[in-house]
Amino acid sequence: MAQARRPATSETGDPLLLTPGPLTTSRAIKEAMVHDWGSRDATFVGINKAVLEELPKIIHGGEDFVTVPMQGSGTFAVEAMLTTFVPRDGKILVLINGAYGQRARRILEIAGRAVAIHETAEDTPPDLTEIDRMLVTDTAITHIFTVHCETTSGIRNPVEAIAALAKRHGRRLLIDSMSAFGALPLDSREVYFDAVAASSNKCIQGVPGLGFVIARKSALAETKGNATTLVLDLHDQNAGFERTGQYRFTPPIHVIVAFHAALQEFWAEGGVAGRGERYAENARILIEGMEGLGFRTLLPAARQAPIIVTFHMPQDKNFVFQRFYDALKDAGYVIYPGKLTVADSFRIGCIGALGAQDMRAFVATVSDVLDEMGVGLKSAA
Amino acid sequence: MAQARRPATSETGDPLLLTPGPLTTSRAIKEAMVHDWGSRDATFVGINKAVLEELPKIIHGGEDFVTVPMQGSGTFAVEAMLTTFVPRDGKILVLINGAYGQRARRILEIAGRAVAIHETAEDTPPDLTEIDRMLVTDTAITHIFTVHCETTSGIRNPVEAIAALAKRHGRRLLIDSMSAFGALPLDSREVYFDAVAASSNKCIQGVPGLGFVIARKSALAETKGNATTLVLDLHDQNAGFERTGQYRFTPPIHVIVAFHAALQEFWAEGGVAGRGERYAENARILIEGMEGLGFRTLLPAARQAPIIVTFHMPQDKNFVFQRFYDALKDAGYVIYPGKLTVADSFRIGCIGALGAQDMRAFVATVSDVLDEMGVGLKSAA
Repeated sequence: MAQARRPATSETGDPLLLTPGPLTTSRAIKEAMVHDWGSRDATFVGINKAVLEELPKIIHGGEDFVTVPMQGSGTFAVEAMLTTFVPRDGKILVLINGAYGQRARRILEIAGRAVAIHETAEDTPPDLTEIDRMLVTDTAITHIFTVHCETTSGIRNPVEAIAALAKRHGRRLLIDSMSAFGALPLDSREVYFDAVAASSNKCIQGVPGLGFVIARKSALAETKGNATTLVLDLHDQNAGFERTGQYRFTPPIHVIVAFHAALQEFWAEGGVAGRGERYAENARILIEGMEGLGFRTLLPAARQAPIIVTFHMPQDKNFVFQRFYDALKDAGYVIYPGKLTVADSFRIGCIGALGAQDMRAFVATVSDVLDEMGVGLKSAA
Repeated sequence: MAQARRPATSETGDPLLLTPGPLTTSRAIKEAMVHDWGSRDATFVGINKAVLEELPKIIHGGEDFVTVPMQGSGTFAVEAMLTTFVPRDGKILVLINGAYGQRARRILEIAGRAVAIHETAEDTPPDLTEIDRMLVTDTAITHIFTVHCETTSGIRNPVEAIAALAKRHGRRLLIDSMSAFGALPLDSREVYFDAVAASSNKCIQGVPGLGFVIARKSALAETKGNATTLVLDLHDQNAGFERTGQYRFTPPIHVIVAFHAALQEFWAEGGVAGRGERYAENARILIEGMEGLGFRTLLPAARQAPIIVTFHMPQDKNFVFQRFYDALKDAGYVIYPGKLTVADSFRIGCIGALGAQDMRAFVATVSDVLDEMGVGLKSAA
């Protein structure tokens, strides 16, 4: 009985978040926030400078890239990136296979930017041949937008191949790497792009409240006057740092200090290689365990990013998702509902301060919950 | 000697922030952040709902007002308010007597909104007769924007009289009450306005990362399609809460949980009356003490809000501001540089988790620092 089991908890006594972020973070990261700093004072300015300087190292950006942080969520960073980098007379090819591609389209339409769309089903990567054809025939296209890992399904999109196509056709690439940044490799020496957006509360394992764009300096320099707002203007935000070393507008100081602590833990774990490996192990244990219980993943292994895994909703008449969700919550695990249109599903995240033992304990709990609900998927699988 | 003195510290061992916010907060508020929550989980959704429901009580908003929070800083909330409430064919009279009025003008110009300006010097409130004349002669004006307390100087602008003028002429009023909200009274039963913007890290004494707009529901209902961005669209943000009880985009969860704790402390102190009284006492001790040392305030008492006080830079040749600032920082006090164009000055805040004893100790430290620097203002005053 799951009820008899002592609920799983994090270091700080909280349920484990098997979600795509905000996620479970270490105690040390959160305890870094139990102080006050002045936003213009040297102590905080130094911490912020370290954060901005460390992020481009994750993409091996050398001297070519600069971090422009953006207060708010990841979507604030994506809207800032799109409206700053795509000029008012530009046109952008938006690759869509989920909610985050759709969101980019909506941002661009509100901003009055010309848009071309290549849309595939949520379980299907973009068609490189079709992209190639669109770039040949539509010469007005100046930019391409893609989502690195579409959290809608957990699919890993082929950014490397998309970047190669963009480069060959002389178009600029903008990447939303929100849920992948820091766990899936993105090496700017091999993958050519102008900007990549991500946030504090995904694979770097900080708390939410800060987005950021790592921008190619030469491309950012051309964006003056493009933006449609004051606060989301990355050119102006960067100019502020160049002039004063400070944010133009009050930063989320505590979130940034926690993010600084999170970056130290990230490097201590071995950067992208170390973190990516732990998440891949988490995903392997999760998928094998859930398949062993009779669940089926939406995606084949080759398309699955080790970030969040979508499972088909079981057909068993005794399986009621809300009961399943609530029983897991009572047992200390927060999972995530589905967002797909192509299939009835739910999602389980593999990221955050979680390891192999947590994933094994989670699978064992799922097994107990199925027994309680009288669900027998193994025979049906 | 200030160096011999043990530095002043907050409950968490930090320098005291005599700044206009981010400010010194209580330990309990920051310790509330040492947990993780899922952004779509019931626990956090409930905490957020309580925050949204409590804020309109501060303006006695009853059932007429709703809180629309905005990720980011206060300026994000101001840009969201201006671009959501002023329609594309509207025109707004912007009252300017400092940097925050200027910033509103810039936001509106970027958004392509028609603007009329009434500007007075930084130490001078707007001219009500002139506003009246402008509203009579320029019938295209649909809205008025004013800053409650202009942090540039610390001046208290006459929002009550401005609201009465707006109402008499049938124009809509939008208020930036950033640094005043929660400490200066703003009673929506007596002062008619459509929306007021503020943030988490001012007089409610939370940490930075969240802005909010308290909007008249009937006015907000008319704003659909006005906004120029996705993320700053208050109509869409509010519709999201009405539909799901959740943020459209990841909220700064920890900042919101701390803000919830800060609101409890705010009510425990007696709300606007209690907090305003403590700040007024802080300001009185500060001003009397500094005047006793020979400093002069920019503003006469009648125009001075008890939020932040601007002092003229002393003329004594031994007074070097950077030395003064650094010596106070070493003694545990962070003050604020000036932002005025009308006079060389510096500023000292009276807000945050600071009381009479802190302000008295601060004045005594200033006295010591002046002695060390060989500055004798008393004879010059």
